[in-house]
Parts: sequence; C-alpha cells; structure tokens
Amino acid sequence: MQPINGYGVAKVLDSTHPKYAKDDLVWGSTGWEEYSLVTAPQLLIKIQHTDVPLSYYTGILGMPGVTAYAGLYEVCSPKKGEYVYVSAASGAVGQLVGQFAKLAGCYVVGSAGSKEKVDLLKNKFGFDDAFNYKEEPDLDAALKRCFPQGIDIYFENVGGKMLDAVLLNMRLRGRIAVCGMISQYNLEKPEGVHNLEQLIGKRIRLEGFLAGDYYHLYPKFLELVIPAIREGKMVYVEDIAEGLENAPAALVGLFTGRNVGKQLVAVA
Amino acid sequence: MQPINGYGVAKVLDSTHPKYAKDDLVWGSTGWEEYSLVTAPQLLIKIQHTDVPLSYYTGILGMPGVTAYAGLYEVCSPKKGEYVYVSAASGAVGQLVGQFAKLAGCYVVGSAGSKEKVDLLKNKFGFDDAFNYKEEPDLDAALKRCFPQGIDIYFENVGGKMLDAVLLNMRLRGRIAVCGMISQYNLEKPEGVHNLEQLIGKRIRLEGFLAGDYYHLYPKFLELVIPAIREGKMVYVEDIAEGLENAPAALVGLFTGRNVGKQLVAVA
Repeated sequence: MQPINGYGVAKVLDSTHPKYAKDDLVWGSTGWEEYSLVTAPQLLIKIQHTDVPLSYYTGILGMPGVTAYAGLYEVCSPKKGEYVYVSAASGAVGQLVGQFAKLAGCYVVGSAGSKEKVDLLKNKFGFDDAFNYKEEPDLDAALKRCFPQGIDIYFENVGGKMLDAVLLNMRLRGRIAVCGMISQYNLEKPEGVHNLEQLIGKRIRLEGFLAGDYYHLYPKFLELVIPAIREGKMVYVEDIAEGLENAPAALVGLFTGRNVGKQLVAVA
Repeated sequence: MQPINGYGVAKVLDSTHPKYAKDDLVWGSTGWEEYSLVTAPQLLIKIQHTDVPLSYYTGILGMPGVTAYAGLYEVCSPKKGEYVYVSAASGAVGQLVGQFAKLAGCYVVGSAGSKEKVDLLKNKFGFDDAFNYKEEPDLDAALKRCFPQGIDIYFENVGGKMLDAVLLNMRLRGRIAVCGMISQYNLEKPEGVHNLEQLIGKRIRLEGFLAGDYYHLYPKFLELVIPAIREGKMVYVEDIAEGLENAPAALVGLFTGRNVGKQLVAVA
C-alpha cells in the first residue's frame, strides 16, 4: 500500500544517493510511517542547524515557514507602516506571517477561532490586534473596527465569507496572497465570493502561490529566521500528537480548529 | 444641474488655460451635453492625429484603447504562443484586446452574445475562434472545446458564471486582468464565484486595473496604434446613436448587449 505522504523530519538510515549519508538529518516529503523509503530524494532538504528543535523543520524552518515567507515577502512586498491582516493566524503558517509582517514594520491583525488563540496572537506572536471570528456576527464590521484605515495586505488562509468581508475593506493597490481556503475544502460546493468587483476600482491583486516555487530562497530564508529564533525575535507554537495512531484524529482536528499552533505528530 | 459625464471628443471654443487654444481638438471627460464647461482640463488630452475618424478618440484611440493596451500588455505580459480568452469580445475594449493579443503572437478566442458579433470576431477582428455564450448551456465545456490546452490569459469583462468557468480552465501561472464585470452591475447581489481555490495550485494572478493609471504610456500606445490603423492592421467597429436624445437608450442597451462594437452618441 502507498503510504500517505506529509512533511516530516527524518534520519537517514541507509542511502545510495551521493548527497545523503547514514545519520544525516533531513526534512521534506516523507510517509505517515516509522520507516520511509524515499524514492525522490530531490524533495528532501538536509538539515544544517541542529541547535533548534528538530520539529521546527516541519514548521517555522520547513514548508510552513517558506510558505509564510514567500507569500508575505515575495507575493505581497510589504512596506513599512502597511496594514496586514492574517486569517487562521495562530496556525502553522499564520503565526509566522504575523511575525514576518512585524519584522517588516507593518501593523498586523490576526483572526482565529478561540479566546486562547487570540491571546496567543496578541501576547506571544506580537500581533497588534486580534479577534475571534466565531464571536463576530458581522465580519465586515469586525474588520472595519480593527482596520479603520483599511487593509493593504491580506494573507488568505480561509476563503469564503472572510474573503468577501476582506474585499470590502481592502485599500487601493492592496495585495492578497492566496495560501489556502480551509473553510471551503470540505464543502460539497464552495461558498460563492460576491465582492470581486472591488478588485477593479481599488486595483487589487489576488494571487495564488505554493511554497514549492520558492525553495531556491531557502538559504536566504534561513539567514533571517535562524538568528531570529536564537535571539527570541521569532517564536513558534506547536501542537504535538503522540504516536502515529493519533495522526488521523489530529488531521481531522485541523478542519474544526482543534489544534493550537502547528499540528505535529511525533512518530518515533 | 450637474451634467452626466462621459468620455467625449470636443473642440475648444474658448480657453483661459495656456495649454488649450480655440479650435484645439481634445478628448477626455466631458458632459452629456452640446457645450461643456471643463473645469478640470488636466483630464483632457489634446488630439494630434486628425487623419483618423475623430470618433476613434472615444474608442481605439481613447480610454477603451488604453484600457485594452494596459490590461493586456501591462497587467498580463502576453508571450508569443500563449492562449488568450476575451469575454464581451466585440465591445469597445474586447475587440481591441483580441487584436492586441494577435499582434503579440497569441492564440485568441472571444465570446459575445450574438451570431453577428461572433462573425465580427472571426472575420473582422482576426480572433482565431469565437463562440456565442448565449448558446452554450455549459460554459466550462465551451471553454474546454476552444482551449483544450487551457487558458494563459483571461481578459475579464463580465464576471459571475463566466469567471467561474474560466477558473476551471486556467493554466499554470495564468493571469486574469479584471477590467469589468458587466453581468453583475445591475444585480441586487452579485453572483458568487465558487472556484477561487483554483488560484492556489495553478498560481493564478487575478488583478483589477483602471486605464487612468496608464495614461503616461499614451505616447507609446499611439506609436503602436496610429500606424496599425493607417496600415489596416487594426480595425475598430462603432455603433453610433444619433442625437443626445438617444443617449439614455444607448446606455441601457449596453447591459442587454444591443450595441455591436463601441457604443457612441453623436451629439453635434
């Protein structure tokens, strides 16, 4: 049977590839299993810095990190003083987008689905403001309260109604990086987005992207992030499920927002 | 009473502005009236070439021309051999987008709302293919028939269901210039667009724009278009209503697709 794939951290036990030797640590696409046979080693990245938690290579130093970095810096080109909004902001990617935006000198607001997560955004990740979308009957009003001047950059993780409300609050020449639309993935038919006309008068750019297009920036990314972690300027929250047997429930929990921070499964 | 404004061609009868003298011809924002008092002359452009029909300065040589030029060339950067789709393709802007795309070496398909318009697209404007969207029960199937390889560039004039069908047929790194969404303007609530998730995996860029941001390119634009008109390499179809009294009906006709080509009103 083909294993389910996911991003993992692994130690090389044996290798016929000249680039990888026994005991090398790598991160990349591995199986949901204790031992993986990797037939596409070009999808692995060798781990150079081991003075940080190795689990970080599934998060802040892995695909979610590159996603946040590329989506914010490369797709949206934030300028100092711009207004940035992040949805699903306490998740694997969102918590990093907010921190990258603060490093760029932006004003950052995030939304999440519980009081606990909103507290994390404000008190741990350094967001300027945050709100619990589940307690906002009117998302447009919530955004107008948090962004009386409007939004320059929206990092889109959820889609649907949230995107519609954001479109009403975007500023001239706003940029929306479309990273995910998790609110839509399990619907039989995705919700309609009604406010796309806003794109025209405000000259808004809405752009989908994948981290995979930006791995050539990984060395530059590490130069920023490794010192930021060491100096405590960036933090990362993980939610670790113990044992492969708990992996399916952890996956399902992503869609109900049960996880707080990056969901991991500790396999071995 | 404030006159309704629109883009017009006019002759200067009197001027206190150093840039404009009696008998100068200008185009730009004027009133729906026989005589206009222009208090914002910076919104006018002086007409230099008079060996072309002056009405062209409301179309191919005016705002619609700059719209087509900027939306296609500046927003979408077409490359030779790319697949371009234009909706409302026989209209003031669409007919020009198709011709600009052909000049760039692209494969171009347009849609319009009557057999007469489809014939124009294929036989007068040089589109490679065209279809009547009113006779297509399944827009997705129509696009798959016309673009078995998919669409690289969509010039969006209509919105709604058409955009949804296009999203399903976009290629990797496709670009959508959002110029207008005429199918949505008179709806109490705009239709929902359901397929925006397509943006992510295909890294599609959807970008709104206005011609007004590109008037600095007008001299460069004229260098391309004036010779193209003189040499018969670009053509323009106008639908002229005679007399200001017919202007309201002509305006309403835009929303039902009654006009064929750029709708004009000959005032004097």
